[in-house]
Amino acid sequence: MNIIDIIEKKKKGEELTKEEIYFSIEGILNGRIADYQMSALLMAICLKGMTIQETTDLTLAMKYSGDVISLSKIGKTVVDKHSTGGIGDKTTLIVGPIMAALNVPIAKMSGRGLGITGGTIDKLDSIPGFSSDVSDEKFIELVKTVGLSDIAQTKSLAPADKKLYALRDVTGTVDSIPLIASSIMSKKLASGADAIVLDVKCGTGAFMKDVDSAKELADTMIKIAELDDRDCTAVISDMNQPLGYTVGNLLEVIEAVQFLAGKVRNRRLYELIKELCKNIYILSDEYMNLSLDYYENKSELDKDDPQNVEILHNMIADKIDEILKTNAPYEKFKEFIAAQGGDAAFIDKILDIDLDANDFTEFTGEGSKKIIYTGDAPAVITQIDAELIGKVSLELGAGRIKKEDDIDPYAGVVLHKVVGDIVEPNDVVLTLYSKDKYSIREATELLEDAIKYGNEEDNVAEEARSIILGVI
Amino acid sequence: MNIIDIIEKKKKGEELTKEEIYFSIEGILNGRIADYQMSALLMAICLKGMTIQETTDLTLAMKYSGDVISLSKIGKTVVDKHSTGGIGDKTTLIVGPIMAALNVPIAKMSGRGLGITGGTIDKLDSIPGFSSDVSDEKFIELVKTVGLSDIAQTKSLAPADKKLYALRDVTGTVDSIPLIASSIMSKKLASGADAIVLDVKCGTGAFMKDVDSAKELADTMIKIAELDDRDCTAVISDMNQPLGYTVGNLLEVIEAVQFLAGKVRNRRLYELIKELCKNIYILSDEYMNLSLDYYENKSELDKDDPQNVEILHNMIADKIDEILKTNAPYEKFKEFIAAQGGDAAFIDKILDIDLDANDFTEFTGEGSKKIIYTGDAPAVITQIDAELIGKVSLELGAGRIKKEDDIDPYAGVVLHKVVGDIVEPNDVVLTLYSKDKYSIREATELLEDAIKYGNEEDNVAEEARSIILGVI
Repeated sequence: MNIIDIIEKKKKGEELTKEEIYFSIEGILNGRIADYQMSALLMAICLKGMTIQETTDLTLAMKYSGDVISLSKIGKTVVDKHSTGGIGDKTTLIVGPIMAALNVPIAKMSGRGLGITGGTIDKLDSIPGFSSDVSDEKFIELVKTVGLSDIAQTKSLAPADKKLYALRDVTGTVDSIPLIASSIMSKKLASGADAIVLDVKCGTGAFMKDVDSAKELADTMIKIAELDDRDCTAVISDMNQPLGYTVGNLLEVIEAVQFLAGKVRNRRLYELIKELCKNIYILSDEYMNLSLDYYENKSELDKDDPQNVEILHNMIADKIDEILKTNAPYEKFKEFIAAQGGDAAFIDKILDIDLDANDFTEFTGEGSKKIIYTGDAPAVITQIDAELIGKVSLELGAGRIKKEDDIDPYAGVVLHKVVGDIVEPNDVVLTLYSKDKYSIREATELLEDAIKYGNEEDNVAEEARSIILGVI
Repeated sequence: MNIIDIIEKKKKGEELTKEEIYFSIEGILNGRIADYQMSALLMAICLKGMTIQETTDLTLAMKYSGDVISLSKIGKTVVDKHSTGGIGDKTTLIVGPIMAALNVPIAKMSGRGLGITGGTIDKLDSIPGFSSDVSDEKFIELVKTVGLSDIAQTKSLAPADKKLYALRDVTGTVDSIPLIASSIMSKKLASGADAIVLDVKCGTGAFMKDVDSAKELADTMIKIAELDDRDCTAVISDMNQPLGYTVGNLLEVIEAVQFLAGKVRNRRLYELIKELCKNIYILSDEYMNLSLDYYENKSELDKDDPQNVEILHNMIADKIDEILKTNAPYEKFKEFIAAQGGDAAFIDKILDIDLDANDFTEFTGEGSKKIIYTGDAPAVITQIDAELIGKVSLELGAGRIKKEDDIDPYAGVVLHKVVGDIVEPNDVVLTLYSKDKYSIREATELLEDAIKYGNEEDNVAEEARSIILGVI
């Protein structure tokens, strides 16, 4: 077996065997296959595609290229939640405490961000004292006692994926569904969860620009999960506008904290959080218990009745609404932060910040700039382009371009108004935060085409539009 | 401008600009573009193609990546001849002396072989004392005095092509018409000839397996030449069977010498030599003189009369036949060899070798093996597969797999019988030569499927078949 024949085969659009895929992945790690050979193969995969079997084999080859973690000591079904990445996506920070408060354990390994804003770990790192560098034993212990832990992916997790990802990033071979799906799933499968809920983003601020390709990616990942014996559900959600009111790192933690405490809850964010929590619950042991109780005095046949399923799902939705009326999710978040060394008093402090009052600079000492609606009549916001807001926040210092770059935890964007909101002349629409004046100027220029205004009718349309585009 | 955008653009099948192509070629030489980025781009080119304009821009970017040689001091139109590579292709060794004897100067830069048997320079190197390492000044001087010189391509000739070729060789990106055409033409254009005759091989023993793709390659190269203001003609010739009676290095020199001296002349080789010589002549100053004489007492209109053109071409064909009846080409070959330090007495010595008598081992001390026709009734040879004979000669040591490999000048294959010949039981069909017994055994196994036998009717068909498949 040699790599040139494998490249030639894929170039012709033929299906690679499991052996050929494992040979390629082992070769890139042990150095027998050069980077320039792998990048040629990656380009051929981009252009010729891969079957589900090939994609699954690639996923498993990468999964087994490093450590595979067992979470069986937790003694319960562990459901993982993964987002394909979007602008202002702080859902993990919110979903985790809610589920833990509902007695569904969350054991999560998160990444750092690249290209856009920080990843979940970058966001958590903006909390003083918080540590994402936790041993596997401590991690399992925290999930058992607190019900929630979120740690950084270890270097030994799917090292072949790291290698391939770095190569794809600089060779124009990122936008391939088999490559994206196998990259995500190799890490998910190696990190040991029994079931996975995927949040597949779709729109200008996501890898997948349209619903069809988002569904294709979701289908592919679900099939991979099935072939590796995991339950998997995918929620397709809209990413044409940023999620919630903040884009950044500490800014998003503030919004998450205020959401959990019931202080500020963006409509679309609430809708997505509920859908994700519901689907995680459905895959958990708690749902099993709920169903057992519900079907106890009913016949076996009732389980196939969609009406019964709907009743059960509504019961979950109610449970989520109920728990969000209590202080439990907020307290769970503080408990989780404290358990990983973070300053719980800091959480109480950021709960009190009024982001609309623009007192954030006093808190952090950052520079800021208000973006004003300059029209001379009231209007409705019809678009805040997610991709452009992502670029703006990157420019402000909230993300990193290269792996080695530092992230500015305080940088980012606060959206005082979102799509569908009415603005009066001289209303502040956004505030930009950065320690770099030059960046604020550049970001302001980037913003020019991001926001569009229209009339009242557009408002009605937006209000009716759901953030959820599908559940598979 | 950045390479990732360029790769993405080609991945989508869009046309690259001249600036983007020059940026890519300069980048691979100055190290700003990594090998793994270039190989991804090469794969995208393989799968998405290039327009003629892109292919020409790529050719010129590679041409100007190193020294560009001027042959203007020769004071005459210099015609170059290039073969895309085949099995047993010793045409350059024969065409050069014939043209020089016909007063058409040949200034040729040749390569070494890779993958199959040696290149022209490897073949010439098997002559004791011969040097292909000649300065540009000496080269021009030799073309002026002898009328013929053949030197190794200098390292400074199209270095970007060398880099790309090495990368293509190990990344499964060889079989792309734009990449093959630009690789060949960048070196041809940089080495300064005014006009070029291409011998585009087609068949199992060539890059191009069918006539359509051979014509496409020929068309591409002619268009590149035109866009760089050079006259160019392409002869498409059959390479389903080896050319002539020998495959190897010194073995091919022996056949060339014996052809020039009129001792042994394979029918198909003669046909191809004549076609190549004719087309080189047509592009030379000699043809201009011939036409001037011919049209002297005729009207201007006569020049458009195809009958007149045919008469002129027949005059050239006669000139070639006539010169091949004299000793002049053979003497010219010896003069050329001696002028580059070679031993002219050695040429006289190898002229006397009887390859069919199998006394070659006495001459060189090599090991050999006769391959016998084992049928029990007379038969006609219907196939000697060029590709397999190429692999056999590589196995015997006549070619190199890696650039650093040594070539065995004495190794190779002598075909005592060719396609169309009748064999009697126990006739020797081929003799294999190698200094390595193991290689002879391996080569014998490879030979198994190479030769096919049939009945008399096939013979007639073969005799009628021309080696020339087209002239463009």
